[in-house]
Amino acid sequence: MRERDVIKLLRERLPIGDDCAVIPFRKTHLLLTTDMLHRRTDFPDGLTPYTMGWRAVAVSLSDIAAMGGKPLGVVIALGVPQFEQKFLEEFLDGALACCTACQTKLLGGDTDRHSELTVVTTALGEAPKPVLRSGARVEDLVCVTGDLGRTAAALQLLEERDFEQANELLRFLPRLREGQALAPLASSMIDISDGLARSLYLLSEASHVGFRLDATAIPFALEVEELARDQEELFEMGLFFGEDFELLFTLPQEKLLDARRACEFTVIGRVAPKDKGITMQLGAESIILPDRGYEH
Amino acid sequence: MRERDVIKLLRERLPIGDDCAVIPFRKTHLLLTTDMLHRRTDFPDGLTPYTMGWRAVAVSLSDIAAMGGKPLGVVIALGVPQFEQKFLEEFLDGALACCTACQTKLLGGDTDRHSELTVVTTALGEAPKPVLRSGARVEDLVCVTGDLGRTAAALQLLEERDFEQANELLRFLPRLREGQALAPLASSMIDISDGLARSLYLLSEASHVGFRLDATAIPFALEVEELARDQEELFEMGLFFGEDFELLFTLPQEKLLDARRACEFTVIGRVAPKDKGITMQLGAESIILPDRGYEH
Repeated sequence: MRERDVIKLLRERLPIGDDCAVIPFRKTHLLLTTDMLHRRTDFPDGLTPYTMGWRAVAVSLSDIAAMGGKPLGVVIALGVPQFEQKFLEEFLDGALACCTACQTKLLGGDTDRHSELTVVTTALGEAPKPVLRSGARVEDLVCVTGDLGRTAAALQLLEERDFEQANELLRFLPRLREGQALAPLASSMIDISDGLARSLYLLSEASHVGFRLDATAIPFALEVEELARDQEELFEMGLFFGEDFELLFTLPQEKLLDARRACEFTVIGRVAPKDKGITMQLGAESIILPDRGYEH
Repeated sequence: MRERDVIKLLRERLPIGDDCAVIPFRKTHLLLTTDMLHRRTDFPDGLTPYTMGWRAVAVSLSDIAAMGGKPLGVVIALGVPQFEQKFLEEFLDGALACCTACQTKLLGGDTDRHSELTVVTTALGEAPKPVLRSGARVEDLVCVTGDLGRTAAALQLLEERDFEQANELLRFLPRLREGQALAPLASSMIDISDGLARSLYLLSEASHVGFRLDATAIPFALEVEELARDQEELFEMGLFFGEDFELLFTLPQEKLLDARRACEFTVIGRVAPKDKGITMQLGAESIILPDRGYEH
């Protein structure tokens, strides 16, 4: 079975479909999200333990951000082949620093010996009005925070042994401030953990809409523009690679001014009818954005 | 580093020390707990996927029970070497059945490919008055729910290839009803995940007290009494083995009648001054209960 089929199987049995589980509680909503990361797939050689700890926490807090939530706390389950004091301390420093940067707390966890380094972070959050993936309406604006392709650039820098800049790029700050500021305005939202293209397809499925992007409007990270040798590589790194953890959201046209006042972002297209599919205007041409992206 | 040293390191940096993290929220408390289980250490050969799913959920709900909490939901991160449909479906059936038995819901999770089967469950709960490990007072009664040694018995049955009875014993029902009923009465509480002896030492550290147990009062599971060849083996299976997930709690003497009305349990001793240590009366003899138990 491929991961996608597994998710399909789980969807038939569990109430999943957004970045977090949503639990109505005392006139508000609790948000709960869990993420599993491994040495082999998620922590390439050259990552410092500090960056691993930061990133493990940031990945889960990004899910809270994607629903417009405020974090209430994080717990970590950590499986390591050997308990090494230096590794553990640096890992913990990174995890704690990310929590502090996000004004939340690392509250505890579980440790275990494990053949492969495995980290599972769980974040708890709260949102009076969680933003779902299912609210996009035709003619809404399509927007992203920040710029795209940072993780792809970082991995290339790791290969070129530019460890310092790579680690810095990988310690992204979850878009919690932006998520909360946009929560009263956005009609749908998701974090780009599987690449822009795949994230658009997820929004499309949940909202039963298509999208029409403008290639010239898409904000690529400076590092990606420097590293990419041609347009094809630029799109590969910025649209399909994944793990950027920016927020992708839709916005009713009349909320644009309020949203501009709330935080920085870029308008990259419009919501289209479902039968138009997901397309990108590239010069005179309109190309269909293929449904592929990063599979964890 | 041994697991105990790791926990010590984590304790210096994180606010840990109870079965769950406690988050004050809107005049009540949210409880958050995460547990990592592996094929090698936690799922011995002979366990069915259904039992694995049940047990993964039950372990975390037991932590909610240990603080007197009511569960609000569970999420699971699952790493498997191969996504096999039959395994996944049975695992999910077990996890869902345990949630249903505990009147809570499986809300979602994360999946990933992993060299060793790895399951991390996280439970969210609520408790108006969470019962901590730190509230035991000298002369309080020491009590346990249910009987001890079921997991030790189950593992022996697995070795004897009596898979059906072993699996049944391992699908324990978390003591949520008892935990909530005892929450207004108990002075301290913990779930026995590391064996009775180790759990007493954890309560002792947190509450700064000792304990005086009566060996004749300790309720051993029928299966353990049948399987143990002598008293030494009986104690080994019932006091030191761990993973029983019964509740160990202390109770002010004057609350005994109320507690008896609230749920079933056994009084096994009394809280003693710290300097008396943790002892067990065995006939005319008083022996010191050694601080050892199951290390995950």
